[in-house]
Formats: sequence, structure tokens, C-alpha cells
Amino acid sequence: MAKAIHSMIRVTDEDRSVAFYNRAFGLELADRYDFEGFTLIYLSNAETGFELELTVNKGQDAPYDLGNGYGHIAFSVNDIDAEHKRLSELGLEPRDIKSLDHDGTPLATFFFLQDPDGYMIEVLQRAGRYL
Amino acid sequence: MAKAIHSMIRVTDEDRSVAFYNRAFGLELADRYDFEGFTLIYLSNAETGFELELTVNKGQDAPYDLGNGYGHIAFSVNDIDAEHKRLSELGLEPRDIKSLDHDGTPLATFFFLQDPDGYMIEVLQRAGRYL
Repeated sequence: MAKAIHSMIRVTDEDRSVAFYNRAFGLELADRYDFEGFTLIYLSNAETGFELELTVNKGQDAPYDLGNGYGHIAFSVNDIDAEHKRLSELGLEPRDIKSLDHDGTPLATFFFLQDPDGYMIEVLQRAGRYL
Repeated sequence: MAKAIHSMIRVTDEDRSVAFYNRAFGLELADRYDFEGFTLIYLSNAETGFELELTVNKGQDAPYDLGNGYGHIAFSVNDIDAEHKRLSELGLEPRDIKSLDHDGTPLATFFFLQDPDGYMIEVLQRAGRYL
């Protein structure tokens, strides 16, 4: 059966993005493949085999057009208040923590932050269906 | 530690997208939450806990602007030739199967196809680092 294994985004500055995902989510460099016109970088941590793939196209200096279709990748965390504080102290400017109810039942507690290229990332309290 | 749990894309036609991801990758409806202005749909299969989240914004009829930043979600499969044939026979128009070497060593065998909103999806032969 088909297995979801990674999500790919194009980024403009490899070092900046690798540092961000490491500091923000503990993602480590799993593999890096340099080609003539581009570099592929795979990031992951011990929580899941699902990877974030970064593509760096050489010579791409202009910001990418992020459009309005793709939403975000989401990470669950054990203590959302502590994570929000930690990310704030790192200067990563997480947005406010919010909660979403569905039919009167708490569904999600979360906040968003942006990566260095402006991609949105959702951080969810590990609870309910978000494990 | 932060755990990657889902990736979200905005789609214009819920039924069409749910049918596509089911036929193409065996993703089943894990949960569906209807709100006043939008619906959240979570799709997954038994291969991984990582989910695809679809957001349907009510009243959104125009196609989303997909930009050029977000790349794709990737799925690994046991038999890429058989999957390519099956997806072709379903009329899902997968692109040609290609291989990528890195420094003379085979790295990946893959093809792309588009979902109903035009998002790219990579299908990889389950081998090497793509498990």
C-alpha cells in the first residue's frame, strides 16, 4: 500500500532553513544530495519516519511564490505552552495560542509560526486525535 | 519532541479530492469536522499515522493559486511499474517513470501525478532511503 513518506518545499537558503527546523522542531539532517542545479535535503527526527524534504534550486535568489493553496505541515508537542515560550525566546515569533471547538467539544489547541521562507507551520497540543 | 503529524492543502471539491486520494493511494476518511465556513477532512491509511488534511473553504469556487514554492507530498510503493499501470488505467494520467542517480549511484525511481486541484504528488519505488 502507498505510504506517505515526505513533504517537499522549495527554500532559498539551505543553512537558514536547516537551522530553523532544527531549532524549532529538532529535525536533524538525515541525508543531503548535491546535484548540478539543485540540492535535496532530508530532515527528520526520532518521532516519525516522515521527512521534510527541502529543495534548494541553485541560482534561485527571488522568494518563492507561496500561493494560497498549500496550507502547512503540522507538528504535535507534549506541552504547547512550554513550546510557545521556547519558540518565542528563540525569536521565532509564534502567533498566539488558539483553541478550536467542534460542536461544543474541544478539538484542537494550536498556534502557527512561519519558517524563513514564509511557509506556515502548525504546532498542536498532543491530545485527542492529534497524537 | 515535536512530531510531524499532517500536511494540509486547500481543495475546492471535497468529494472529488476524497475519491482521488482513496483511489490513488488507499487513503480513507479518518475524521471529518464541519464548521460554519469550512470543513476539515483527515485522510490516512494503515501504512503511517501521518495524515493528509484537506481544508474546504465554503464559497471558494475559484481554483487556488498553487504558487511555485510548495513541492509535493510523496508516497512510496512496493511496485512502481504496477502502480503506474494501475493509476494509468484509472485515468489519473501519471507522468513517465524516471530514475535519478547521485554520483553514479541509483538514488530514486519515481513518477509524478497531479491531484484534482493540481497539487503535485511524487510516487517513489520503495527502496534505498525511500521506505
